[in-house]
Amino acid sequence: MIKPSIPKGTRDFSPIEMAKRNYIFNTIREVYHLYGFHQIETPAMENLSTLMGKYGEEGDKLLFRIQNSGDCFRGITDEELLSRDVQHLSAKFCEKGLRYDLTVPFARFVVMHREEITFPFKRYQIQPVWRADRPQKGRYREFYQCDADVVGSDSLLNEVELMQIVDTVFKRFGVRVCIKINNRKILSGIAEIIGEAERIVDITVAIDKLDKIGLDNVNAELREKGVSDEAIAKLQPIILLSGTNDEKLATLKTVLADSETGLKGVEETEFILHTLAALNLQNTIELDLTLARGLNYYTGAIFEVKALDVQIGSITGGGRYDNLTGVFGLPGVSGVGISFGADRIFDVLNQLELYPKEAVNETQLLFINFGEKEAAFAMQTLLQVRAAGIRAELFPDTCKMKKQMSYANAHNIPFVALVGENELAEGKVTLKNMTTGEQQLLTPAELITAIKS
Amino acid sequence: MIKPSIPKGTRDFSPIEMAKRNYIFNTIREVYHLYGFHQIETPAMENLSTLMGKYGEEGDKLLFRIQNSGDCFRGITDEELLSRDVQHLSAKFCEKGLRYDLTVPFARFVVMHREEITFPFKRYQIQPVWRADRPQKGRYREFYQCDADVVGSDSLLNEVELMQIVDTVFKRFGVRVCIKINNRKILSGIAEIIGEAERIVDITVAIDKLDKIGLDNVNAELREKGVSDEAIAKLQPIILLSGTNDEKLATLKTVLADSETGLKGVEETEFILHTLAALNLQNTIELDLTLARGLNYYTGAIFEVKALDVQIGSITGGGRYDNLTGVFGLPGVSGVGISFGADRIFDVLNQLELYPKEAVNETQLLFINFGEKEAAFAMQTLLQVRAAGIRAELFPDTCKMKKQMSYANAHNIPFVALVGENELAEGKVTLKNMTTGEQQLLTPAELITAIKS
Repeated sequence: MIKPSIPKGTRDFSPIEMAKRNYIFNTIREVYHLYGFHQIETPAMENLSTLMGKYGEEGDKLLFRIQNSGDCFRGITDEELLSRDVQHLSAKFCEKGLRYDLTVPFARFVVMHREEITFPFKRYQIQPVWRADRPQKGRYREFYQCDADVVGSDSLLNEVELMQIVDTVFKRFGVRVCIKINNRKILSGIAEIIGEAERIVDITVAIDKLDKIGLDNVNAELREKGVSDEAIAKLQPIILLSGTNDEKLATLKTVLADSETGLKGVEETEFILHTLAALNLQNTIELDLTLARGLNYYTGAIFEVKALDVQIGSITGGGRYDNLTGVFGLPGVSGVGISFGADRIFDVLNQLELYPKEAVNETQLLFINFGEKEAAFAMQTLLQVRAAGIRAELFPDTCKMKKQMSYANAHNIPFVALVGENELAEGKVTLKNMTTGEQQLLTPAELITAIKS
Repeated sequence: MIKPSIPKGTRDFSPIEMAKRNYIFNTIREVYHLYGFHQIETPAMENLSTLMGKYGEEGDKLLFRIQNSGDCFRGITDEELLSRDVQHLSAKFCEKGLRYDLTVPFARFVVMHREEITFPFKRYQIQPVWRADRPQKGRYREFYQCDADVVGSDSLLNEVELMQIVDTVFKRFGVRVCIKINNRKILSGIAEIIGEAERIVDITVAIDKLDKIGLDNVNAELREKGVSDEAIAKLQPIILLSGTNDEKLATLKTVLADSETGLKGVEETEFILHTLAALNLQNTIELDLTLARGLNYYTGAIFEVKALDVQIGSITGGGRYDNLTGVFGLPGVSGVGISFGADRIFDVLNQLELYPKEAVNETQLLFINFGEKEAAFAMQTLLQVRAAGIRAELFPDTCKMKKQMSYANAHNIPFVALVGENELAEGKVTLKNMTTGEQQLLTPAELITAIKS
């Protein structure tokens, strides 16, 4: 008998972990609904022709491929087999692969269902994705993504609402965050005015080190990367950019005066920040030029969220992109989206102990089982208790009280109901508060009131 | 450019379908919680060693296998490759497969986590499963199962509570059902007393036809199947079994007087039915000896649920089993479970038009966008509206009113808010009821009251 196990990089979720994860997903879902986003789901398996070439060469290698059912060798010559060419033969053995992210299936969905969709299409999607990555701490081969996107609208109000969603979600979690915002057009503008369009990534990486290594070392690093002295001189006000968002925007307007694209980025950012300023965000939002995520993908605003009280990478991110669906033959569909990192948020809430008790303690009341007659009375009472919306159980077996109480303890059940001979005679229930130890003799109606209060 | 498609037998779910599916899952989930069941999740991928041999030879062929990442040819000789032996080589190419049902992963979970689990373990699980079945109408290669099981308790109160759950779920859906119950031990008892233990399936199939073909033809069919005349004579009271559940139980007690197993089955069924009789079920529960599902798997009670007002197969089923985890090295874990058929329930609710409006209409209010100033006022109002828990949107673009109104219509949004110059001046909103066409000029606070009432 082999001890059973699960594939590396995958996880089982226990009831307590599920309760916490559901709390996270439900909070995000509720806020998405408040803002008019609608859920879709796509199949776990997509045709490999849909997935291949969308994630770069590295990504193609990380796809989980599903072997064709039936005779997977049909149509393959002996020579091909003996070539042992994994890439070539995989393509013959496997027509399907597991979803690698939610974006490509979403693009495929928009194209396939474009006749049924009324644009702007505000969709959210909470589903697992699979990547044949090397498993390591905090990185899994199966994990959930929670994405929301608006496609088919160029309005910057979408960016504004996504930031409101981010702010509301973390307010509800009780997590203090800093929302960082940047704009791809500002970065392009910077590259343009210093004549170093190709080095924009090197430049943002260097700027990001200012606090740690100081201005001289940043400039030295830029020089090392081949940025010209003239360009470095022009870059100085940008490297030293500081102050409030408005001060930063003012500096950028001067520096980027000659770049139409750059000024457009400044204007967009200004609109987003000024509109948000009137909307009472709980968390701070900061213009951060070092934010350069997904540079090849995003075309306008870029967002990222950092937790203030826990050392952890970005817990949410997103941005505006053009041409989501061009690769599937439908050009001109632009959009903007965000993605909450559920696994990291799970860790943050764990570390800060922010799970509300009622989200995690699922059963509220356990009836101890003293025998057939007592159980019959308990089941009658349970009819009323459950009709009142209280989550309650009767211990199914008539075993030792100690075993039944340890079940209540193991599940953190806050109330235990005892029905013995005396209670039965009176038609009442002894309710024990497991936190205080206090006991009360109550009618079923009083019991409901006691638990609900 | 290839038109994108999805693998056969799989489905995309649109927002309206998702809203309906979520209504089904949430209803089931809420009732599971009321009865103290806790959710777990297991990975989509299991090791093939966990899955193989658990579903019969046919089942093994229907598993979706995942190709090993990296060089899947390593350790395979040229001769093996050229043998083209699919079974043998698949086992080398693939170590993992997709979940085929929720039961085997649950058994694996119980064994792996037995030290952390406090028994009885009441778990539910709502996840997709995958089968490489021939796709046909109503049968998919990816579909959800919604299972609840209690393991580690022999008490029949578990059977009783599962029937209460079934009754409550369909009461909440508004679907009239007949819950059918049988007991494997009764069937074994019948086979025992007529000396035809091997023919129990033939017998139940024949009995099932009584209404359609009449007694003579049933007896003829039994004779054809090789059941002896003596056995057929003994079977007559069972074939003709009718009346109330109590009448049926009384007949069975007489007929099965010589079978200890049979009498045990009658006693169990009597306990379940009598206990339920005091618990005000909304739906009828009927002892039905023709119910023989999963005969090799179930060892006690067997359940099945039929919709009364729609022609469709069983929409929920379950039963008691022994030795769930024996195959993984942990003997003696028995349990009882049910499984709701989400796809069929979806069809039933569609046919009977039973989806509650509020479950399906997601956005309650749309603000029409007349321009920058008006939008800014709308966003302020939206702060209050959403804080009141109303799901609301502002159309993001300042386009023609007709386009914006058709968005509201396409999404069945019941209220539209209009903020033009006049409203702006007064700090009010014109609220249009999309069903009645009625318009009212309201303050933001009045608007919230109007929508909530």
